[in-house]
Parts: sequence; structure tokens; C-alpha cells
Amino acid sequence: MRQRIVVVGGGFAGLWAVRALARGPVDITLVDRANHHLFQPLLYQVATAGLSAPDIAAPLRHILRGQRNVTVRLGEVVDVDTASRQVVLADGQSLPYDYLLLASGATHAYFGHEDWAGDAPGLKTLDDAFLIRRRLLEAFERAEAAGSEEERAAWLSFAIVGGGPTGVELAGTLAEIARHTLRSEFRHIDPAQARVRLVEAGPRVLSSFPESLSEKAASQLRRLGVEVVTGTPVEHIDATGYRLGTEFVPARTVIWAAGVAASPLGKLLGAPTDRVGRVIVDADLSVPDHPEVFVAGDLASVQHAGKPVPGVAPAAKQMGNHVARMIRSRMAGRPSAPFAYRDFGNLATIGRMAAVVDLHGMKFSGLIAWWFWLIAHVFFLIGFRNRIVVLINWAWSYWTYQRHARIMLGRPSGPAGRTPADIASPETPP
Amino acid sequence: MRQRIVVVGGGFAGLWAVRALARGPVDITLVDRANHHLFQPLLYQVATAGLSAPDIAAPLRHILRGQRNVTVRLGEVVDVDTASRQVVLADGQSLPYDYLLLASGATHAYFGHEDWAGDAPGLKTLDDAFLIRRRLLEAFERAEAAGSEEERAAWLSFAIVGGGPTGVELAGTLAEIARHTLRSEFRHIDPAQARVRLVEAGPRVLSSFPESLSEKAASQLRRLGVEVVTGTPVEHIDATGYRLGTEFVPARTVIWAAGVAASPLGKLLGAPTDRVGRVIVDADLSVPDHPEVFVAGDLASVQHAGKPVPGVAPAAKQMGNHVARMIRSRMAGRPSAPFAYRDFGNLATIGRMAAVVDLHGMKFSGLIAWWFWLIAHVFFLIGFRNRIVVLINWAWSYWTYQRHARIMLGRPSGPAGRTPADIASPETPP
Repeated sequence: MRQRIVVVGGGFAGLWAVRALARGPVDITLVDRANHHLFQPLLYQVATAGLSAPDIAAPLRHILRGQRNVTVRLGEVVDVDTASRQVVLADGQSLPYDYLLLASGATHAYFGHEDWAGDAPGLKTLDDAFLIRRRLLEAFERAEAAGSEEERAAWLSFAIVGGGPTGVELAGTLAEIARHTLRSEFRHIDPAQARVRLVEAGPRVLSSFPESLSEKAASQLRRLGVEVVTGTPVEHIDATGYRLGTEFVPARTVIWAAGVAASPLGKLLGAPTDRVGRVIVDADLSVPDHPEVFVAGDLASVQHAGKPVPGVAPAAKQMGNHVARMIRSRMAGRPSAPFAYRDFGNLATIGRMAAVVDLHGMKFSGLIAWWFWLIAHVFFLIGFRNRIVVLINWAWSYWTYQRHARIMLGRPSGPAGRTPADIASPETPP
Repeated sequence: MRQRIVVVGGGFAGLWAVRALARGPVDITLVDRANHHLFQPLLYQVATAGLSAPDIAAPLRHILRGQRNVTVRLGEVVDVDTASRQVVLADGQSLPYDYLLLASGATHAYFGHEDWAGDAPGLKTLDDAFLIRRRLLEAFERAEAAGSEEERAAWLSFAIVGGGPTGVELAGTLAEIARHTLRSEFRHIDPAQARVRLVEAGPRVLSSFPESLSEKAASQLRRLGVEVVTGTPVEHIDATGYRLGTEFVPARTVIWAAGVAASPLGKLLGAPTDRVGRVIVDADLSVPDHPEVFVAGDLASVQHAGKPVPGVAPAAKQMGNHVARMIRSRMAGRPSAPFAYRDFGNLATIGRMAAVVDLHGMKFSGLIAWWFWLIAHVFFLIGFRNRIVVLINWAWSYWTYQRHARIMLGRPSGPAGRTPADIASPETPP
């Protein structure tokens, strides 16, 4: 009897597990809310109009078309019944399993400030990226059409909250857009006058890097035109601006890159979760008391060598592979093994010719780090075609400072958009 | 004193007029609701996942960055006051003009069946294209997950209403997607079993072409797998299907390519309009009794040599150029001249290696027509980069049958999407 394996989530952890189970007497169902695998490390490029969605996303069905033991299912998981071993979907259908891998990842979190979400969108999905792209491009349009100097300045004031890799990438790229990409396209404003602030509550940006690289990153950001503010938490955000300590800064565009929380599906397992909702798994990545249920990727809280395994793509891929091995071990009656994280290093890009790389023993920054980052990311992009097109787009952007995806879609309405009335502030009565 | 020219609409007519006025003592304001110029002839490729939005759209600001006498204004026109010579925008600002060009184009129309709009979306903007892309891709996903044979068949039943160029392009491409692109990606359905129907109320498809080419087009469509139904109007459309005469056909995906109506802005001028709302202009494209107001492109109802000028890109560009000449003539006190349409021919693509070309005296179809169409369209695409990338995408699609933009965005909710409950039909109770 072939064993039924259900994998929830087609990110790095889920997809790598599915691929590692290609040869085996198993029937795999991969469930995802989206029809595509997303190369998340480059999502900020979609948000900043450098790449278009298909450059960094490929249909899961297409990636797995040749693997005959997999069925891809577009659907939303609403419940997991670990007693009867079934995953329940929003359309009412159930998927019975012998083994389950939950790898539904993380989402952005506001930690008690959920009311900030509308005014400070976060970046996790392609839909988020399109919303942020629209907000960024629209801010310059509104500044150009503004009726007063105050209004103009507020539209040209941008804040990125959170100095991790995503915040650093967004701030550096936005500064480049303002200073170079939009140059000479406006008649009433000078986009280079835009104020791009990166606000980090902790003492330094890129806190997962060695301190010397954090300093390098901050100075590279400043050279690109970003104001870096550390050690100061944001106390308040609304449609007119944000408050840092006692200072209220008028700003119409705030992006949230400060908090990550695990997917709410983790709670469905009844297993213990950590502070941000990640499932605390056993050493082999299975759930306590449920050797047939595994959690991997950003949803898993795992320690290795006394340190938490970080929520990065290489860790997710390694976990996915490990879960595949554990399922094969269980099926063969072999003992399980603990997950061991191989940490190859840490890299973050900042902007044009600016990046930091920490290979544990070898640290570098600037142009050489940027080339290292670029080659590594293009190499890991899924799909031959994407790599070529992304390279062409990047080469073109690099030489021309242009960003080809500067297309605003939709109209500013509904919860995702803001109408002029919504954003009327005290200093600009409607 | 520099004359103020306001141009409403950054399509072919508006953009060509603006460019033709580059050298002159004028201050031009170009107003558009979207931030981009759209290469409309390839919009069906975005709807069918062959191209991504930035491949066929470029920011108006970027196109015109070097033309210093132009200000680009993102905004929505809500009124035109021809007495005080002002264009009023939705944000309350007014743009005074000495000369006005209204070139806001056309939209799709349901001619008294506006309630069909939700179940049979039309294709005019990038947002429309994304909605149709989502509907087409989702239909195959829903068929794969369907609980009954009836439901599966309804999700695999597609209808394109309207046998003009857009309908023919959509039907031919959709048949190719079903038969080739999705091959071997599904486990419960065979996408090649999809029923793609092109329904035309008139006696033949591509009625603006000579009869022999209409026949060629119909036979090429049939070879690609499209059922071509002519002489039969659609009597009814809802979420479960459509009615042709007395036959009700279950179908979950209907696309509307049957009707075009002029932009509602035409009505604001107080000038006579034709049956579909186009402004009936004088021979020089100005509005009767308002020599300072012009209408061009799909919004203008113009005759040349006793025949109506068709709503195609070359005609819009020629009208835009003519209006620019007329404005210069008025400013110099020279007499006006009638618009003369130079008709270079008519071409339509049908699908892989299938197209029809009518160069008035020379007619051809099939592979050679397809190459002719391809070269002409790539040549006319705005922007050097776009041409290269589009060519690469096409070459890749051609050899692999793949379509790189198969990314579904957003969730099916709100008026644009349909939830399972919305589409519950008598034969599939919720």
C-alpha cells in the first residue's frame, strides 16, 4: 500500500521535501494557497519595480510536472485533524495522510499594533509586493500634483521600519529610485529630495551579522542617500506619518519590515509554539507525540548547536530535505536522526554595488560582496529561463538606472488603497 | 504668451499628439488615469500569461522625460468646462487650456446587458488582463479539484463572445494553452479536453477582413482546437454558463470580446455622439463650434473616403499627429485641413503560426502572415528594452510551448472574483 504524504506550502521547505521524495512508493499531495513557488529573496525587487512577478515565481504545477507521484492542489488549509489524520480545505474537501509536512511559512506581524497594517504594509507575498510598488510610485505622483509645500514634503517622506535584510534592501533601492531612476521625469518636484529613512529599534541594522558588517551596511546606506536611525522604536503609525519618541514625522508612505510571525496553521497541531507562533519541534523536525507530523521552514522552531536555526532559504531547503529523509526512515523502520543545520554564511544586498557577506571567517562588503550576492541569487533562482531574463533585466537596470516594472495597477480603493479623503491630515484639510 | 494644451489620455492618439508638439512654444499637460502607455495590440498576451505587464507598458513619464514642454499628470477627469476652457480632475484641481485634445479611448460595452459584466469580463486595461488571466488559470485548478464530472466539465468549458480580432486571439491562444502549455501538469483532468468556443453573432469571424480571410481564420482556429460558432447571438450569461438560442451551455469561464463603447468623457463636450458614444467631429477632428477642442483615437467618430475610420492603433496615431498639426495651424493663423486616413492594411493573429494579413491587394494567411504580424508588432512596441525582452519571451514560448506569466495574484473575492458559493449552480449544490 502506497503511503499518502500531504505537504502544506510550496515554499523552499515544502518544495524541497516534495522533490526529495521523487523516488518512492508514495503519493504526495502538495497544497498551497498560491499557484506558484516564490523566490522570496528577490521579492523586494518586485516591490521596487525592478523585476516583474513571473521573473521570481513559477507555477508549482509546472515545476513538478515531471514528478508523477505528486498532485498539486490549489487550496486553503483550514484545519488539521491529527487524530483522524486529515487536512481539511476551505472548499470542504479533506486530504487523508499517513505523513504530513506543515511548511506554511511566516507572515509579517505588528505585535499588538495590527491597526498599523493598513498604513504600513509588509512584504511577504506577490500581492504585498504589488501593493508596495503602487504605494511607492503613487507617492511621487501625488507629490508632483500636491497643492501645498507641506503636502508635497509629506508625500516625499518615506520610512522603512525594521533594519533587517528586507528593510535594508528596500531602503537602499528606494533611495536609488529617488536619486537616479526618476531623475528628470517630474516637473514640479525633484525626486532626489525624497527623504528615505530606515528606522531600527535595536542598536544596529542587520543584527544577525557581525558588528563590523552592520557598520559597513549603515555607511553604505548613507552613501546611497538613506537616513539610518537606530536605537529608536516607532511609537505610532497612521496615514499622515509616524512618531519616533516625541518626534512626529509627517510621511505618507511607511513600509513595515520589522516583524515576522509564523503562519497561523502552526496552532492547529496542538503542539507547543514559541513567542512568534512557530511550532517547537523535536530534533528530527517531527511534532511531539506525532512522529508522522513534521514541521519545516519558517514555521519550525529548531535549535542546532545551541543556537536557533534562522528563517532563511538555505535552512528551509535543508529542513525540507531532512523531512523527506525522516519519512523514508519511518517507512523503512529505521531510527530517526536529528536535523543538523549547515550554515554556509549570511549575505545581504544594500543597493547598487553595495552588499555585505559573512562566510564565517571571511567577511567582505561593497562591490565584491554585491557581485557575490548577485551571482548566488541568480544561481539559485528556479528555472533556466528566469535566470536569463533576470540577468538581462538587471544588466539593463544597472546601465540605465531604469526599472522596467514601474507599472501601477488598479485604482487606490478598498482596504489596500487610500483615497485622498482617507489621507487628509490636520495640515491638509480635504 | 505660451499656449496651454491639455491632452486627456496617454494612448496612441494622445501620446502621438504630445510627441508631435515637442517643438513649439506650448505648455502641454498630459492627463491619464494610469501611469503608463499600454501597447494594447498585445494586451491579450498578458491575459493569456504569455507576457507580463511591463513587457507591453511603459510609464508615460519615462517615455516623455526628455520632452521639457510636457507635464504628465496622473489623474481622473470628471468634467470639461468648454465655456471657461478648463478640465476638472477628481482631486478638485482644474487644468485651464487654450487647446484641448480628448483622447480617452474606448471601453468594453454590454449594450443593455451590463449585468453580464461580472460573469463575462472584457479586455481593455492591464487590470482586465490580470483578471482574465486569473479566471483562465483558476478554471483549470478548479476542474482538477472538482467533486463531480458535471462540475469538472463546466470548469473546462470556455466561451469567448465576439469574433473580432481580440476574440480570435484569445480563443486561439486559450486552445494552445489547453492543448500544449498545460500538458502533463494535472493528475485528475486532461486540459486538452477543454472546450474552447468562439461565439460570433454575425455571419463570420473577423468581419472587417475580406471574406476569404475570415474563412481562413475560422479554419485555422478549428485546426488549433477552437469550436467556431457564427450567426448565433448569446442570449444570456450567468455564473453557470451561457445560452445560445435555446441551448444552455454550462461554462464557468466566459470572456467578453463583443462590444466596444466610447469613453464616457465624450459626453462631457456637449457635442453630438454616435450610437456607441463616440464624438462626431468635424473633418479636421475638432468639435463643432469649438475649434479649440479636438477628439482623436477610439473616441472620435470620423469618416474618410465615405467609410468610417476604424478603431485601430495606426488610425489613432495618425489622428494624434493630425491634431498636433491643426493646433500649430490655428496658432499660426493658417487654415485647417481635413484628416485623411492612410490605411496600410489589416492584420490579426490567431495562434501559433496562424494569422491573416490583408494589405489591400495582397492577402495571405498562415505561417507567413504570422511572421509578418510578429515582426510588425515587435517593431512598433515602444521602448528598445521591451522589444528585446518580448522577443526572448516569444522565442522561449514558441520552442517550449510554455508561458512564463502563469502567476495568479490575489484571492478570488470581491466583485472581480467568485467564491465557490457564488458559482454554485443547480447541478452542483453548495
